Amino acid sequence: MTDLVGIFVFAISGALLAVRKNFDVFGMAVLAEVTALGGGLFRDLIIGAVPPAAFTNLGYFVTPLVATVLVFFLHPQVERIQRGVNVFDAAGLGLFCVTGTAKAYDYGLGLTASATLGLASAVGGGVLRDVLANEVPSLLRWDRDLYAVPAIVGAAMAALCIRFGILNPLTSTLAVLTALSLRLMALKYHWRAPRAWHRSSVTTEEPERVMP
Amino acid sequence: MTDLVGIFVFAISGALLAVRKNFDVFGMAVLAEVTALGGGLFRDLIIGAVPPAAFTNLGYFVTPLVATVLVFFLHPQVERIQRGVNVFDAAGLGLFCVTGTAKAYDYGLGLTASATLGLASAVGGGVLRDVLANEVPSLLRWDRDLYAVPAIVGAAMAALCIRFGILNPLTSTLAVLTALSLRLMALKYHWRAPRAWHRSSVTTEEPERVMP
Amino acid sequence: MTDLVGIFVFAISGALLAVRKNFDVFGMAVLAEVTALGGGLFRDLIIGAVPPAAFTNLGYFVTPLVATVLVFFLHPQVERIQRGVNVFDAAGLGLFCVTGTAKAYDYGLGLTASATLGLASAVGGGVLRDVLANEVPSLLRWDRDLYAVPAIVGAAMAALCIRFGILNPLTSTLAVLTALSLRLMALKYHWRAPRAWHRSSVTTEEPERVMP
Repeated sequence: MTDLVGIFVFAISGALLAVRKNFDVFGMAVLAEVTALGGGLFRDLIIGAVPPAAFTNLGYFVTPLVATVLVFFLHPQVERIQRGVNVFDAAGLGLFCVTGTAKAYDYGLGLTASATLGLASAVGGGVLRDVLANEVPSLLRWDRDLYAVPAIVGAAMAALCIRFGILNPLTSTLAVLTALSLRLMALKYHWRAPRAWHRSSVTTEEPERVMP
Repeated sequence: MTDLVGIFVFAISGALLAVRKNFDVFGMAVLAEVTALGGGLFRDLIIGAVPPAAFTNLGYFVTPLVATVLVFFLHPQVERIQRGVNVFDAAGLGLFCVTGTAKAYDYGLGLTASATLGLASAVGGGVLRDVLANEVPSLLRWDRDLYAVPAIVGAAMAALCIRFGILNPLTSTLAVLTALSLRLMALKYHWRAPRAWHRSSVTTEEPERVMP
Repeated sequence: MTDLVGIFVFAISGALLAVRKNFDVFGMAVLAEVTALGGGLFRDLIIGAVPPAAFTNLGYFVTPLVATVLVFFLHPQVERIQRGVNVFDAAGLGLFCVTGTAKAYDYGLGLTASATLGLASAVGGGVLRDVLANEVPSLLRWDRDLYAVPAIVGAAMAALCIRFGILNPLTSTLAVLTALSLRLMALKYHWRAPRAWHRSSVTTEEPERVMP
């Protein structure tokens, strides 16, 4: 059930970007599906879990369509509650990095690889969304609040819990909440990651605005 | 044999875009291969049919190269018969959405997932083509004639025929022809899909022209 | 061991592009990993070697991170030795096209398909790097020195050696060196591939500069 919440909010972010890019309703649905399911799809292909959960669980497929319909009719209202969307997106991020790590480990990957795949399933959908929309992935941009670090911390916590045999609902929830809180604090205090040294004063790319 | 026709026309569209983007002959070949085989490759990875047909059937690999050579020497002539190319592309679209749906079902996916993969194998190559050429995928753009809907209808018809146990050469052909006709009518009457509400009067993206 | 060298130099090229695109340190790490491991990952997914080597060999994962740290602190120096980076990149290209071909054949693919996958593992990482950085893949551009041809020659030599049962360390090295030399000569003499006929005098794309 909780994963459907994560899928839903990721789908919202995909559908909203589609509206901003002036796509039609099918473009919205495609971007919603890709954002919501892309990360998990990548993880499942890597660990050999085929067909991936995205294609065997009907709820996973339908949820992004519901999000699309909602954004289609109500997008000005959805934009207005961007802050609320951000909170749910942070929850999805925390959830996916932990469950992704656990699933990869269940399929026999090492701890580092599992945590990497946990990270990839949390952020992969957003990267695919931006690539399809022909944008520089916001994950990579220095002028975006930290997104990768919270997921890395959550995935690393899950991997450590596995390592010491203490991954249970309680510690999982703790890892999810840690990632969620870090992301919310990054949003609130505009935490940024550093760029390469000697780089701060020059910009070769003109500033781009994605989010109005 | 019919699938080679679909592969050929999809490859033509890839090679033509490469010419428009001023790529060299290897870029043309890469874009032709990706456009023609990308959708089926994605489907085969999802259903676990590895190595994918694109890598086991030599004809699948050679056909896009033939299309590349043709466009390399004759592209002004090929451009001039764009209408003819569109008809064949519509035929490829109809063919792939039906065969893709049937193949996915053969590998044990549910009906909805099979139809989705049928759609993905029909439109996936074109999306990959546009991503590699650094264009907004024309599948997503509101200012393009309907492309997804004919494939959705064809895939849904195939899934329904499977559901009722009546998928045979006759009904398959009917589904292919329906998708093909819908696409041709979308081209002829410039059918468009709606964008999100309250959106019609504003454009945030400057108009882009891909097809001269 | 040699493959780590190839991974390292490919990762350097990814991290350098990230600096040029003004990405933060996590963007650098992502681009380094993708460039270094993307081609092999694609090959392993196609041949069904899951989990892919990129996720089972810890050295494969750590090496791009080392390259990222190096570029982070020393990127002006790394830029200055671009010529040296190009030599190593050519070595990586030669190495990957030969080992990729051999690995694909070991997994039961035909000779043509194996050579194609060898080519794809050599150039795939660079294509993914450029797609993520929202650039037209330099592989496809006519105004770049030949990159695909050296890899095609190397992969074809490896496939021919397999065909005649003479693929051994000596002939493999010869194939690697041939690809490497061709790439270095392409760089030195600015070999370019032709564009489609009647195309030389017109450019529809404005000139883009990626490398300053």
